[in-house]
Amino acid sequence: MDRERGILFVLSGPSGVGKGTVCKALRAQKLDIQYSVSATTRNPRIGEVHGVDYFFKTKEEFQRMIENNELLEWAEYVGNYYGTPIEYVNQTLDEGRDVILEIEVQGALQVRNSFPEGVFIFLTPPSLEELRSRIVGRGTETEDLINNRMTVAREEIEMMQHYDYSVVNDEISQACSRIQSIITSEHCKVDRVTNRYKKLLGDE
Amino acid sequence: MDRERGILFVLSGPSGVGKGTVCKALRAQKLDIQYSVSATTRNPRIGEVHGVDYFFKTKEEFQRMIENNELLEWAEYVGNYYGTPIEYVNQTLDEGRDVILEIEVQGALQVRNSFPEGVFIFLTPPSLEELRSRIVGRGTETEDLINNRMTVAREEIEMMQHYDYSVVNDEISQACSRIQSIITSEHCKVDRVTNRYKKLLGDE
Repeated sequence: MDRERGILFVLSGPSGVGKGTVCKALRAQKLDIQYSVSATTRNPRIGEVHGVDYFFKTKEEFQRMIENNELLEWAEYVGNYYGTPIEYVNQTLDEGRDVILEIEVQGALQVRNSFPEGVFIFLTPPSLEELRSRIVGRGTETEDLINNRMTVAREEIEMMQHYDYSVVNDEISQACSRIQSIITSEHCKVDRVTNRYKKLLGDE
Repeated sequence: MDRERGILFVLSGPSGVGKGTVCKALRAQKLDIQYSVSATTRNPRIGEVHGVDYFFKTKEEFQRMIENNELLEWAEYVGNYYGTPIEYVNQTLDEGRDVILEIEVQGALQVRNSFPEGVFIFLTPPSLEELRSRIVGRGTETEDLINNRMTVAREEIEMMQHYDYSVVNDEISQACSRIQSIITSEHCKVDRVTNRYKKLLGDE
């Protein structure tokens, strides 16, 4: 196989920072990058397609995946399992395509352990105050819940040091453009270019 | 001083790869980056301005700079000294501005020793064959000189491993865009963002 292997980019950050919005905006730009497909035990909603939106699994199937270390990370949420199958990621990378995985901080730290060669990007709020106003802006939370979120956010920001890059989400288009720059520059890293470099030397 | 310090980017690569052309194209894009000004003992040419094109020095002044370790790198070429004054680079970085230094491979390796916190970018020819045709294209070289250049280029390409990034100069606009991505992504590195991160945590 001659082709350079793809790179796994993990996009994470505190809840409320806008991971989903940034990821949607990245998708809209139709970059040459594959979005990771999660496995879940919850029931498909109308219109959701197996293998596109999720890999739908029974609880028994999911538990077998956990036991066999077939997940980069997993969590239980409101009685259902959610996780990232390793196989899909590895297959895509082997085809020479990059994969992007949008995930909560706890999951990202699991991936850091199970897939250390990934590139970890932390989406950062311009300030905690700004994060606060965004959460309040949803209009669905109580004051206690908001304060609780702030404490969690402070803890999560401390986790930034486990990441490779910090991208401030001051403006979605700016954040997307920074992430694209990270993707481009990671492909230029000398360590990754070794193959091309050896080819150059052997050309003659 | 609250402002984040600038970053020194060192752009280098084999002779004939197009460092000067890429650097000129980058300049034309008027990025918020400062170009390093070299010191030299050669006489100013008509129109050249001290402090803009070069810092013009006497041999005695230049030798004193060498002795006092005031140069990031230096070399003697056709009886004249050329070098990169540390002071200009440090002042600009302290102002929070990035500096770009275009330089031969030997000089870049000197800078790697004297300024290891710099970011080292290696401009790579798409292939040695391509490099060869570019050198022949100049039409001013003998076959022996060309073969000699090729040998030097192979040695220089081996030096790629001392760099952080490898940017293929297949097309000038592409190479410039990759370099800009590297500049952007380097500013997103978690290690460099520590200040902003601490500010976030101390905000409340």
